[in-house]
Amino acid sequence: MAPRHEIAHLAHVQLLTPKLEESVRFCTDFLGLRVVGSEGDRVYLHAWDDYQHHTLTLRAHRHAGIARTHLRAASPEALRGRVDAIETTGYGIGWADGEPGFGPTYLFTDPDGHEFGLYYEAEWFQCTEETRPALKNQAAAYPSGGVPARRLDHVNFLGRTPGDNRDFLVDVLGALTTEQIMLDDGSVAAAWTTFTNKSYDLVYTRDNLGLSGRLHHIAFAADSRADILRACDVALDQGVFIETGPHKHAIQQTFFLYVYEPGGNRIELCNPGARLILAPDWHRVDWTEAERAKGQAWGLKTIESFHTHGTPTADDLTRET
Amino acid sequence: MAPRHEIAHLAHVQLLTPKLEESVRFCTDFLGLRVVGSEGDRVYLHAWDDYQHHTLTLRAHRHAGIARTHLRAASPEALRGRVDAIETTGYGIGWADGEPGFGPTYLFTDPDGHEFGLYYEAEWFQCTEETRPALKNQAAAYPSGGVPARRLDHVNFLGRTPGDNRDFLVDVLGALTTEQIMLDDGSVAAAWTTFTNKSYDLVYTRDNLGLSGRLHHIAFAADSRADILRACDVALDQGVFIETGPHKHAIQQTFFLYVYEPGGNRIELCNPGARLILAPDWHRVDWTEAERAKGQAWGLKTIESFHTHGTPTADDLTRET
Amino acid sequence: MAPRHEIAHLAHVQLLTPKLEESVRFCTDFLGLRVVGSEGDRVYLHAWDDYQHHTLTLRAHRHAGIARTHLRAASPEALRGRVDAIETTGYGIGWADGEPGFGPTYLFTDPDGHEFGLYYEAEWFQCTEETRPALKNQAAAYPSGGVPARRLDHVNFLGRTPGDNRDFLVDVLGALTTEQIMLDDGSVAAAWTTFTNKSYDLVYTRDNLGLSGRLHHIAFAADSRADILRACDVALDQGVFIETGPHKHAIQQTFFLYVYEPGGNRIELCNPGARLILAPDWHRVDWTEAERAKGQAWGLKTIESFHTHGTPTADDLTRET
Amino acid sequence: MAPRHEIAHLAHVQLLTPKLEESVRFCTDFLGLRVVGSEGDRVYLHAWDDYQHHTLTLRAHRHAGIARTHLRAASPEALRGRVDAIETTGYGIGWADGEPGFGPTYLFTDPDGHEFGLYYEAEWFQCTEETRPALKNQAAAYPSGGVPARRLDHVNFLGRTPGDNRDFLVDVLGALTTEQIMLDDGSVAAAWTTFTNKSYDLVYTRDNLGLSGRLHHIAFAADSRADILRACDVALDQGVFIETGPHKHAIQQTFFLYVYEPGGNRIELCNPGARLILAPDWHRVDWTEAERAKGQAWGLKTIESFHTHGTPTADDLTRET
Repeated sequence: MAPRHEIAHLAHVQLLTPKLEESVRFCTDFLGLRVVGSEGDRVYLHAWDDYQHHTLTLRAHRHAGIARTHLRAASPEALRGRVDAIETTGYGIGWADGEPGFGPTYLFTDPDGHEFGLYYEAEWFQCTEETRPALKNQAAAYPSGGVPARRLDHVNFLGRTPGDNRDFLVDVLGALTTEQIMLDDGSVAAAWTTFTNKSYDLVYTRDNLGLSGRLHHIAFAADSRADILRACDVALDQGVFIETGPHKHAIQQTFFLYVYEPGGNRIELCNPGARLILAPDWHRVDWTEAERAKGQAWGLKTIESFHTHGTPTADDLTRET
Repeated sequence: MAPRHEIAHLAHVQLLTPKLEESVRFCTDFLGLRVVGSEGDRVYLHAWDDYQHHTLTLRAHRHAGIARTHLRAASPEALRGRVDAIETTGYGIGWADGEPGFGPTYLFTDPDGHEFGLYYEAEWFQCTEETRPALKNQAAAYPSGGVPARRLDHVNFLGRTPGDNRDFLVDVLGALTTEQIMLDDGSVAAAWTTFTNKSYDLVYTRDNLGLSGRLHHIAFAADSRADILRACDVALDQGVFIETGPHKHAIQQTFFLYVYEPGGNRIELCNPGARLILAPDWHRVDWTEAERAKGQAWGLKTIESFHTHGTPTADDLTRET
Repeated sequence: MAPRHEIAHLAHVQLLTPKLEESVRFCTDFLGLRVVGSEGDRVYLHAWDDYQHHTLTLRAHRHAGIARTHLRAASPEALRGRVDAIETTGYGIGWADGEPGFGPTYLFTDPDGHEFGLYYEAEWFQCTEETRPALKNQAAAYPSGGVPARRLDHVNFLGRTPGDNRDFLVDVLGALTTEQIMLDDGSVAAAWTTFTNKSYDLVYTRDNLGLSGRLHHIAFAADSRADILRACDVALDQGVFIETGPHKHAIQQTFFLYVYEPGGNRIELCNPGARLILAPDWHRVDWTEAERAKGQAWGLKTIESFHTHGTPTADDLTRET
Repeated sequence: MAPRHEIAHLAHVQLLTPKLEESVRFCTDFLGLRVVGSEGDRVYLHAWDDYQHHTLTLRAHRHAGIARTHLRAASPEALRGRVDAIETTGYGIGWADGEPGFGPTYLFTDPDGHEFGLYYEAEWFQCTEETRPALKNQAAAYPSGGVPARRLDHVNFLGRTPGDNRDFLVDVLGALTTEQIMLDDGSVAAAWTTFTNKSYDLVYTRDNLGLSGRLHHIAFAADSRADILRACDVALDQGVFIETGPHKHAIQQTFFLYVYEPGGNRIELCNPGARLILAPDWHRVDWTEAERAKGQAWGLKTIESFHTHGTPTADDLTRET
């Protein structure tokens, strides 16, 4: 088991979209992200309180999906230590230049084939005159429109064997498993893991289609449940498709809203209230099949598409090492 | 005393501003109003759930202030009845064409000299393709940005003798006084009156500078206290000047935020929760000097500018009869 | 068509419950009502900002249901006028003593058989030392626990022919129909009517079981959507059954939560934001079958029990004239 | 500089009160804490989502104040390491039995004389039938009444030299300084430090009275800004004294409310939205005197008592080693 705190946090996602222009508009008008650059088929977007250069990369592609998830190491030493550990697993790919503003990035996959990048060096977000906040302890001005999403919150992958992928995160990267679904046959149907005091950063859910490398959703943090309700009103009149919610999850107790961005990727807005995992000896919560059958916290039944809809990894892209 | 329910509601205000362009930008970017037309030195703005053609007219002028407040009569008969009543008081001015989308409008002043327009005929708001809401029981699409203000809520005038003006509203227009401040000398320092189930529509506060015809503020309805808190964040990074709040008034218990629009007029955002005046025999609440000295509901002391800052009426404009 | 504004507001409901003690506990612990008296098999409960003596009567009975709905007339003259009008319809029953604190009450039914009481004289709520609010423009102290419900908001009846009952309210009592569901065959499946600036006070929905006199739900006003979310958390840990919600209605745009009180009656918590009906020439909104098939505002599908569960009127009680 | 992550989190405070019974009632009725035990002059209180045995100890004393602050080490090894480090500073006191449910506790003071206890072994909160939550990933049932406070959030000490105390936390315990006030003369007027991803856990503010060992306030986490507004309404009618707020701090951007508990200690309710410190290379924010003169985030001026009111440490108690 790797030591905790070597991964500082989930930092960035690169999403694929077949409708780049519309997906960008969704990110700016609905999520309240700001375009901070573009290059070729990629557009870089920043959430208003992300200290880093950008939060999300949208990349034009023939299908929706997730290309890569970036984690930031806690220090140069932690980066070296984790790369060594990854290399012993056979899942390492090699070093790449990294996203704009991100330093040298070590690429690897989880056992299910989702690609990750791990880096330490990071350029901090530089405001323009227009995006300079009134308070200097904030990354950028609070957007008037959209949700607005404060920062990336978590990524929920689909995978063949959530238990194996959870083990990879725990053993190699030092994640903590906070909650999981344990089926009656003893297998793990889903696992929530964290690198921080947030109750989860990376989640694996069993892929009901038996596929590898798919994305269930990425989530952005909203500042309050009230903001998520307001986002529903905005979604309604912007024509954003709401899949399910708003409601509160039983697992992790997150207040949620699930929408699809125009490219087809599922996006969650989430807020956990003041919930944090502070206990160093956290007692992992295992949910049984019977408990899961009760639906969400306040009784909402999980809808069918939630069990099937996912977007694939970019397995046909030439890997950029 | 005039019968109640002849005035349907406060409908529209025409504000003066020496900085038309900036005031318009404040209305669109901060309040979340939409420009629905302009003509000469006037810009017409619509709040997203106002059923009428427009909610606010901004008019370029050499000083900030209020030109006119419009009330909508409950019926053609009510209009005729109220005009007759006004004419007996000597405060009548005469008929005018009215704002765009408003039918024939009878102009008059209150005893303090604030100009009013009373009308019945009204064009309903027509959506464009872009402003059409998803739900047809809503006037226009919910704006993604700004507060957004749902509708005009109330007007608070400054005046030499609030009691006389209150009497005018009650006796001639059928208003109900719901709360007032009664000084130890028996004079009325402020009076809150309503034509509806809202706890106030028009307010008179004694002008501490002894002037006539000034405006203390106009107020827009926000859907929740949470929206007003969010508006504070937006104001901070848009450079909107917050005079006082957010806090809750002791009188009327309205949750409030006071800002100045760039022209200098004070604008309130307000939310009363689910408070309504339903009792047909409402027991008017009289606040004493001692009670007022306690500050606002949760203890905030009223700041000095709140007692002095006001913007004048357009007394030098040629009246447009 | 009766003149508007003769009925001041929906004032009170008498509910039947087979589990009086548990229903009372639900009202105090979950809704945040206060017991203000009891007599025989009846318990009187007060919502914290109701100006009247009490808001709800719970009455022990062998089944759940609604015994009577009280409306307050706008004046003694309005009371006489409406009683005269009712008597011409054949639906009048006669005068009764009324609830404690309510003056002489004229009993009648709607065409579907739901019993109503109409009165004018009303005792205002008298605080005890313990329930005295800090601010004197409030009926009673704000409860620390439960929702808390500010006041009764509306009653939604089930009935054989919503259109006939709507006509009765409009023609005899002066209600305004603000929205309705118009089926493809031209019949009215549901109608929302109001006596106030609230967008609805009394609602009729077609009874899918073909029964008469049943109740769909009564609703209490919560001050914000945030309070309703909080109520969900309270419900979860108090074991209150949540039927559906929280979500936002397409019709009337009310944010809602539906629960069952222990006796079996459906109770709604509702909040419309700052929405009011101010137009004296309101354009009634007719929803088609196709539009209704879209579910609630943000996409929630209406659950089955919502179409069938109702609680009957007390048709076997000896009427107390 | 000590390694980070050896202190898991701020865990518990022991407060002194001259009015034990009233202070307990404040904690249960207003804060929504639960009494989970008592012994002699001490009452143990639990916040609903605290995983530990109790969150706060109230101790009868002749004056208000703070007796001790507990920190939980991240592991047995971390506990040993920190105790060794503390002992080299001369601020160590020795081992004690600890609070009920807390294992062996090492006592020490900061340079200013505030007493701390550091421990690792911890009993998890055991629910009774009555406090068992519906969801098993929650420590105890959500209270219907009061704020309710989810957990202890931070402690703000007054001290002669905030810089020295900050250094102690950083050098000996591995805290990170996230923000501070740097006066024009180069001295540190206040410093915010954290052991977690929360933006602060322990704060030192210069004591304007030049005293040592005093407490400015302890803070409890509320789940939303809406909950804090609601708490204002509850405070008003429970007679809880509100010192200042609700408003948003410029420093750390926390939404806040300050009240005094009946014993005289200042208590804060706080909510930071979704703000977290995730950057491993966080750029400390230093506020200048000029920046501080601007007041709070939305313009509220800091009131006088905020600069002076504090409650002392129990320096006359026999230390219990």
